[in-house]
Amino acid sequence: MKNTFGNSLSVTLFGESHGEAIGCVIDGISPGTEIDEAFISSQMEKRKGINALSTGRREKDQVKILSGVFAGKATGTPICLVIENADTKSKDYSKTKDLARPSHADYTAEIKYGGFQDYRGGGHFSGRITAPLVAAGAIAMKALEKKGIKIATHISLCGDIADRDFGNYEEDFALLEELEMPVLCEKKREEMASLIESCKRDGDSIGGVLDTAVIGLPAGVGEPWFDTVESMLSHALFSVPAVKGVEFGAGFSFGSMRGSQANDAFYCDGDTVKTKTNNNGGINGGITNGMPVTFRCAVKPTPSVYKKQETVNMKRMTDETLLIEGRHDPAIIHRARVVIDSVTALTLCDLLLTRFGTDYLR
Amino acid sequence: MKNTFGNSLSVTLFGESHGEAIGCVIDGISPGTEIDEAFISSQMEKRKGINALSTGRREKDQVKILSGVFAGKATGTPICLVIENADTKSKDYSKTKDLARPSHADYTAEIKYGGFQDYRGGGHFSGRITAPLVAAGAIAMKALEKKGIKIATHISLCGDIADRDFGNYEEDFALLEELEMPVLCEKKREEMASLIESCKRDGDSIGGVLDTAVIGLPAGVGEPWFDTVESMLSHALFSVPAVKGVEFGAGFSFGSMRGSQANDAFYCDGDTVKTKTNNNGGINGGITNGMPVTFRCAVKPTPSVYKKQETVNMKRMTDETLLIEGRHDPAIIHRARVVIDSVTALTLCDLLLTRFGTDYLR
Amino acid sequence: MKNTFGNSLSVTLFGESHGEAIGCVIDGISPGTEIDEAFISSQMEKRKGINALSTGRREKDQVKILSGVFAGKATGTPICLVIENADTKSKDYSKTKDLARPSHADYTAEIKYGGFQDYRGGGHFSGRITAPLVAAGAIAMKALEKKGIKIATHISLCGDIADRDFGNYEEDFALLEELEMPVLCEKKREEMASLIESCKRDGDSIGGVLDTAVIGLPAGVGEPWFDTVESMLSHALFSVPAVKGVEFGAGFSFGSMRGSQANDAFYCDGDTVKTKTNNNGGINGGITNGMPVTFRCAVKPTPSVYKKQETVNMKRMTDETLLIEGRHDPAIIHRARVVIDSVTALTLCDLLLTRFGTDYLR
Amino acid sequence: MKNTFGNSLSVTLFGESHGEAIGCVIDGISPGTEIDEAFISSQMEKRKGINALSTGRREKDQVKILSGVFAGKATGTPICLVIENADTKSKDYSKTKDLARPSHADYTAEIKYGGFQDYRGGGHFSGRITAPLVAAGAIAMKALEKKGIKIATHISLCGDIADRDFGNYEEDFALLEELEMPVLCEKKREEMASLIESCKRDGDSIGGVLDTAVIGLPAGVGEPWFDTVESMLSHALFSVPAVKGVEFGAGFSFGSMRGSQANDAFYCDGDTVKTKTNNNGGINGGITNGMPVTFRCAVKPTPSVYKKQETVNMKRMTDETLLIEGRHDPAIIHRARVVIDSVTALTLCDLLLTRFGTDYLR
Repeated sequence: MKNTFGNSLSVTLFGESHGEAIGCVIDGISPGTEIDEAFISSQMEKRKGINALSTGRREKDQVKILSGVFAGKATGTPICLVIENADTKSKDYSKTKDLARPSHADYTAEIKYGGFQDYRGGGHFSGRITAPLVAAGAIAMKALEKKGIKIATHISLCGDIADRDFGNYEEDFALLEELEMPVLCEKKREEMASLIESCKRDGDSIGGVLDTAVIGLPAGVGEPWFDTVESMLSHALFSVPAVKGVEFGAGFSFGSMRGSQANDAFYCDGDTVKTKTNNNGGINGGITNGMPVTFRCAVKPTPSVYKKQETVNMKRMTDETLLIEGRHDPAIIHRARVVIDSVTALTLCDLLLTRFGTDYLR
Repeated sequence: MKNTFGNSLSVTLFGESHGEAIGCVIDGISPGTEIDEAFISSQMEKRKGINALSTGRREKDQVKILSGVFAGKATGTPICLVIENADTKSKDYSKTKDLARPSHADYTAEIKYGGFQDYRGGGHFSGRITAPLVAAGAIAMKALEKKGIKIATHISLCGDIADRDFGNYEEDFALLEELEMPVLCEKKREEMASLIESCKRDGDSIGGVLDTAVIGLPAGVGEPWFDTVESMLSHALFSVPAVKGVEFGAGFSFGSMRGSQANDAFYCDGDTVKTKTNNNGGINGGITNGMPVTFRCAVKPTPSVYKKQETVNMKRMTDETLLIEGRHDPAIIHRARVVIDSVTALTLCDLLLTRFGTDYLR
Repeated sequence: MKNTFGNSLSVTLFGESHGEAIGCVIDGISPGTEIDEAFISSQMEKRKGINALSTGRREKDQVKILSGVFAGKATGTPICLVIENADTKSKDYSKTKDLARPSHADYTAEIKYGGFQDYRGGGHFSGRITAPLVAAGAIAMKALEKKGIKIATHISLCGDIADRDFGNYEEDFALLEELEMPVLCEKKREEMASLIESCKRDGDSIGGVLDTAVIGLPAGVGEPWFDTVESMLSHALFSVPAVKGVEFGAGFSFGSMRGSQANDAFYCDGDTVKTKTNNNGGINGGITNGMPVTFRCAVKPTPSVYKKQETVNMKRMTDETLLIEGRHDPAIIHRARVVIDSVTALTLCDLLLTRFGTDYLR
Repeated sequence: MKNTFGNSLSVTLFGESHGEAIGCVIDGISPGTEIDEAFISSQMEKRKGINALSTGRREKDQVKILSGVFAGKATGTPICLVIENADTKSKDYSKTKDLARPSHADYTAEIKYGGFQDYRGGGHFSGRITAPLVAAGAIAMKALEKKGIKIATHISLCGDIADRDFGNYEEDFALLEELEMPVLCEKKREEMASLIESCKRDGDSIGGVLDTAVIGLPAGVGEPWFDTVESMLSHALFSVPAVKGVEFGAGFSFGSMRGSQANDAFYCDGDTVKTKTNNNGGINGGITNGMPVTFRCAVKPTPSVYKKQETVNMKRMTDETLLIEGRHDPAIIHRARVVIDSVTALTLCDLLLTRFGTDYLR
């Protein structure tokens, strides 16, 4: 089994929601990379989301560095990041542990692990396990910044509310850095917040679509087959819980387009080749072409809703009804954006180091 | 570099459009698996598509088996499949080889390979390289059938024409096996064919969306992080040229859904756990739940259109116009379906053999 | 970069000798495997070696389990093991940190990590990092025992003193489990201990050869090319610091042998095929044949000797002399045996799970 | 299953001794690398060995390049090399196919592949499969030469005859390039040839030890744990049939050495750090230190001897005697050296490209 991703830069995840601690090992960060603990903390905060839009777990996620950092800088050897599980209320799971929560991983975990899984709070499947990914991603994002490579994500859709597209990347990226609710258009931002609040009142949840852009990537990264940039990114993105769709550039809109509309015309901008449109999302033949890499992720609504649901008792094999009590997030879309940025950063570091050598981000 | 995919079952691709031959090595096919050459041929035929809807390359793709098959059965050692490039017209590329065809990989290949790439007909990036994938996939599909696992794909969208959804899987799968134009609804099938023909007359091309279902998969396959079923499948699917989006189950529709609508209620069907809806596309927490695995792929229109396009001369760094002559496919959507089925079959074999051991498909 | 080994069972190492903590993540241990903490502790003790033969670090290596274990059993998800570095004396490294200790990794670390490595006590290269490997290996050894697979190692050579060969495996294995100084012949055991003590008095160190046997392995494990059992084991074994040679079966003795002597004749023992001799060390064509897998590892003398040595100042590029003070082990050969057993156990688990599926050791 | 080795440069092997063809796919050769077909041929000739010392298969191994080479240079995409099996006499295997030849892979193949393996001439386990490895290695060796990296191997031991050690590397390497029988000392060369001839007359075979040196490697290549240079090289070397031992530098001699003898003192040679001795074989802590990388491989005698041997009938489970008729090689030690050089070259390319990026050998 492998909870490891990446070659030249790799991440190995561990931990359960209600266990001792969660964390990851990140290997391949170039020696000398400054470890910006303040940035890690601010990313961890963004992952926790906004108080008003959440009823969920509010513990402080203090990231402890066990290895791989010396005198404030990466040594080049594996960095182990650990976050203790503080807020693990001693809830009684004995009544519900055999009831598979719909659209959660309880049933598949039961089958795969034969009843030995830690079922408390989703165990190893919990969205909480994205916390160490975000910490690792924060280190990777800072490493990429040395080469002028930046990543940002906004909510392009939530319910029936659509944000505007990215305009000026530098300005929009700066704006998103400030926002707890990552929506470019102020009016839509408020509408989405209201929508989420109303879902919270209803005991319900809502999904969304995240739109990500990466600027500053050099051309020529990726492989023609199997390890295309789309393949590598989607591999990482689809391991984020709740992500159920990934599209690059025009994505599913291509289905209704003609080649004459879809093609991105090339032109020379000084000694750089650019394209007039970017329907291909910065990737041709699986390889970056120097234009912004753009993609969107579909995020399903959190399955923990405060409503009666039909399910089964996995041990007795009987039909049952279930009311999930306790902490609920009405939406994770605004929190997921830092997870998306993080796995994107980790994947891109991997691709760049594979292409240009392990000193590229030194 | 790695043009290899998979662990317990792996595929390694090689070849260029106008080189000596193209092919692949497929490793991990269980010993004793019957090699059904007739089925391989029929899949190769489907990949070539329909005469009426194509102006493209028409060579007979004869698959030659160099190794790994003895007395008509897989030995369990690597199978090398080779297809000779017969129909490589000695076209003169000298005038156009420095002009990057828009939305093709010419420019990214130039950057990555520094001018040493075989530029004739797209070289290693050519859609032609999917031919050995289809041959390998045909072997994998037959191996999966031993366990009752079947895969089929129809065109769910082409331009603004939408096919009906899958209904009875067994019936629809049987129907699709017969069809050259894989559309479930007869009327829509004709409409799509007409649309593609009209694109052909216009010298243009059209994209589409493919909808795939896999039935018969056991529950409990896949990993919680990184090697989720979605991650592994999307990794493979995004290496198919022209695929620019992948969504599982309700996919991007989740963006507008509430949790109470989206959740798939569980129920007992005898001693099997099933879900009433299948919005999660048969996958919870990255692991199969025993329901059909369903996903859709966005396929961009073929970039070779018979129209003047703006581009650059990559050597001289000048703006140019280009008219691509020669063979054009107005659509690949109907041909791509066998490629999708093939990479799906190969990926699933890999996941199953990793989970249940290398004899699982024996 | 990858400090990860294995596919179906993988281990990821982290930590530095004088950092916060060292540890590893072990992924793929079958759900339900009992975690025998007493056995882990006893292996940790064996790794620390015998007081009388050591002047080295004596801290208690308390293994803390952060994840992957629930109610005393493996959940099947990643197990993170952490050992805090307690005994990290605040020695002053400022005078010696630029002097490359001969036959240590100081110089190669300087080149690879550009001066950012944690140089204290060898940092990530320290033999201390084998401690988490031993903890992980203890879990793997217990998992293998479920299938009757056992591993044991004795010192076959130390200086000019040679132990007898393995005789009755079961008896010898039981004996070795009891011994702090793993030598089969009592007289040789005492002679080796005396030799090591005399090296200690001289401020010198001594190397040795370890002889390992694995019994109970099924036939048919391993691959014909690249992932042969010899390849996989040697890959793991050569990552143990100080191991500089690995030979299987008759190993280097084959160089002087004729085929007629070297060949292992087959015979039927009931419904089992066995060989009369075992010159091939239980492996034919890279695959186990059901006989004991046997190999020997050459272990170089610890390079930290209490004698003046010639070296260079890596920053100033000047020739210097160096006297390494502080803790010295006159031999690690008796301690290394549990490390060898551990990496062997981890590698074999990986090979078995790949071959027979992830439930094989459940 | 994986008959693939390497990450940044990978090789995938296929083929059976008596099948249609054997070959490999080599991926990661830098674009622009000249493909020196004359050098490939000369290496293929060396692998076939000397007529006088052989009774074996004499076919001409014509290497056909199916892909990845354009205008005489590597394109950077996968290179498929194919060698047809011409000399596959239609020997009747029906009588002997169920008799496991001692020390061959017949029995382990039967267990692993359940009777579906191609048993003719050893099938996929045949030493013949090293032919494509040699062709791939020839390309890798030429790529390494661009950076001044050279590899050579001599027979250091055959029976009881020992060659002298390497002296002046450049001179000895030049000498070895000329020799069919790679022994540095002329007298010993003749003695070894005589010994092999006498084994041939006896219907017997003889083993040996190969001694390899690599010069010109930069310092700083390799990883501290798991992917040490020793680990990676031994992984590749132990997949060469007949290799049963690998030792680096002083190797097994370390077992009798003291630290004070064994340590390699550092000194400055201008702005380069060197060591006075090279007991560590150019590797400290798993990473190259800039000194020659040196190792020795134990090669077992070919198991095909023309003598009656005891064995079993694998189907009937009965004890039998066997006399292997047909082609016999009395020694492969002189032929194996090009295989060793080849897998060494392929492994080093992989390590270098991973460390310094995929353009390092361009």
